[in-house]
Amino acid sequence: MAINSAAIRWHDDHLELLDQRRLPAETIWLPIHGSDDAATAIHDMVVRGAPAIGITAAYGLALEAARLGDDASAAALAPAIATLAASRPTAVNLFWALERLQRIASDLSGAALISALKADAQAIHQEDLAANQRMGELGADLLPANASVYTHCNTGALATGGHGTALGIIRTAWSRGNLQQVYAGETRPWLQGSRLTSWELLNDGIPVTLVADSAAGQLMQQGKVQAVIVGADRITANGDTANKIGTYNLAVLARHHGIPFIVAAPLSTLDAELPDGSHIVIEERDASEVRSIQGKTLAPAHCPVYNPAFDVTPAELITAIVTERGVIRAPSTDTLLAHLRG
Amino acid sequence: MAINSAAIRWHDDHLELLDQRRLPAETIWLPIHGSDDAATAIHDMVVRGAPAIGITAAYGLALEAARLGDDASAAALAPAIATLAASRPTAVNLFWALERLQRIASDLSGAALISALKADAQAIHQEDLAANQRMGELGADLLPANASVYTHCNTGALATGGHGTALGIIRTAWSRGNLQQVYAGETRPWLQGSRLTSWELLNDGIPVTLVADSAAGQLMQQGKVQAVIVGADRITANGDTANKIGTYNLAVLARHHGIPFIVAAPLSTLDAELPDGSHIVIEERDASEVRSIQGKTLAPAHCPVYNPAFDVTPAELITAIVTERGVIRAPSTDTLLAHLRG
Repeated sequence: MAINSAAIRWHDDHLELLDQRRLPAETIWLPIHGSDDAATAIHDMVVRGAPAIGITAAYGLALEAARLGDDASAAALAPAIATLAASRPTAVNLFWALERLQRIASDLSGAALISALKADAQAIHQEDLAANQRMGELGADLLPANASVYTHCNTGALATGGHGTALGIIRTAWSRGNLQQVYAGETRPWLQGSRLTSWELLNDGIPVTLVADSAAGQLMQQGKVQAVIVGADRITANGDTANKIGTYNLAVLARHHGIPFIVAAPLSTLDAELPDGSHIVIEERDASEVRSIQGKTLAPAHCPVYNPAFDVTPAELITAIVTERGVIRAPSTDTLLAHLRG
Repeated sequence: MAINSAAIRWHDDHLELLDQRRLPAETIWLPIHGSDDAATAIHDMVVRGAPAIGITAAYGLALEAARLGDDASAAALAPAIATLAASRPTAVNLFWALERLQRIASDLSGAALISALKADAQAIHQEDLAANQRMGELGADLLPANASVYTHCNTGALATGGHGTALGIIRTAWSRGNLQQVYAGETRPWLQGSRLTSWELLNDGIPVTLVADSAAGQLMQQGKVQAVIVGADRITANGDTANKIGTYNLAVLARHHGIPFIVAAPLSTLDAELPDGSHIVIEERDASEVRSIQGKTLAPAHCPVYNPAFDVTPAELITAIVTERGVIRAPSTDTLLAHLRG
């Protein structure tokens, strides 16, 4: 039985992705038939959000196996895995999903392999939704009564298997009647806050106020925000967290104002292979994302641009990391590895 | 003899303003014939930047006196002064310029008044340019050797009588061969960084790299920035500084990273009437500035928005305030009032 979510629909012989580049103006679903389609969709940000990228890669690999038919094998899938792995460098969920499917592929071939990969891709999708619902419960417990919170980027149903990571906590807090207001940073350059988070929250009837990213400090200074909640693209063994560019600014501001800074991410985002954030590859994206917005030129045509997609927030600025397994307070290598061991 | 600057041209019978809403795509000069034209141009941000607003208001009032001809008097100009004063609330240079002209008007009428106001408007313009050149020298002395600096909004020739405040320091440091690189924050929502600062610096051949405002923290974390230099719209008696929204974020980030945070502003920006920043009126601008960019809709149509144009940086986060009179280190009510007394 297929699981569908806000931006990912599985149809067994193909996948459909909601084109997040076009939201909120247009709702267009793009068909995905194999690993090349999936890799392009990830690279071009048709789909984005670390968990959703992992789910899409898993489905893409399963579809590639189906294309190979009787020839499907671990060896035959190696190029597809390489293509998918190269689609975006920072989110670890992508590599986590590919490795999980690769382990399954190593023992099987042909129809058995195809059916195992399809089943596991759906399991990854289903498990992510369940993880988000659990994180929602655990994270909502951390919020002060009737809090107003600030969030960055989009970490909602669009970015995950459903419900959301940081936005899942917000959804659960709202459903408990324990949330006053969400301030959503617009999240330049790609405007995930304006285009996606505000759209999701308005659809759910959750009070949201959109602000320029630059207004975050003033909101905290005025006492309008009681917590900052964000997602993650990769968390290293010591708790250092790569997330959308601007997350680090918010962590410094939250510390300056004595406001809790909460990171929500499934276990698949934890990368114990890397000791700390200095080892994380930070994707740099095209200058056009900063020089223009949706085709409108904003800056001189040849103006040099630095456009990192992510930054790294050091663990010491993080109040708590929430996974589906529990809450890691004051994250460190000791607490994080203990958490991973369960 | 008329003084002209990058965005303000005086023709005795009218004023021309470079329409900064259209830069860098188009270079269009709008004619101003009196106080209503000037107030609308200030309100709609044809002209922006605290010093340029003050200069424009002065010229606008002089032109209004010329329209009144023999009827020109302090009493007859009162409505024009009220209209100009209501055009934007935060920049104190506007009120400073109007009060200065009002004092002249109180003793004169008719042709004598017109000619005195025209002469004083030009004097304000000329003095601002000279102040900026002096601030450039004083501020450049504060920078480490061969520094890379971060700046916000536009504080250049477009925002002033010429040369610029923060950008004047940058220009002077560059002319001394003592500047490596300028990082310009794009400055959402109005994109003064993308549209104006990068344009000015590229025109002058000064190396500039444009970044999303959210990237400031990462640049400091990576050691790529040795100072933050900004302008000001109003500085209160204790040194608290109102400036473009996002300035406060930068001040907190600079403090966290141990980087000097320098404010450049002419004496006309100092408002000793207000004891501290809590008394500053912060302009809120229309939601459409955040929901859309240059007519392109980015967010759901009715999404609530909070769009403050300015924030207030407390004096304790400011390393130095540079005026044409000198440098106020670790600003406080004592040091600032002593500076004002000269």
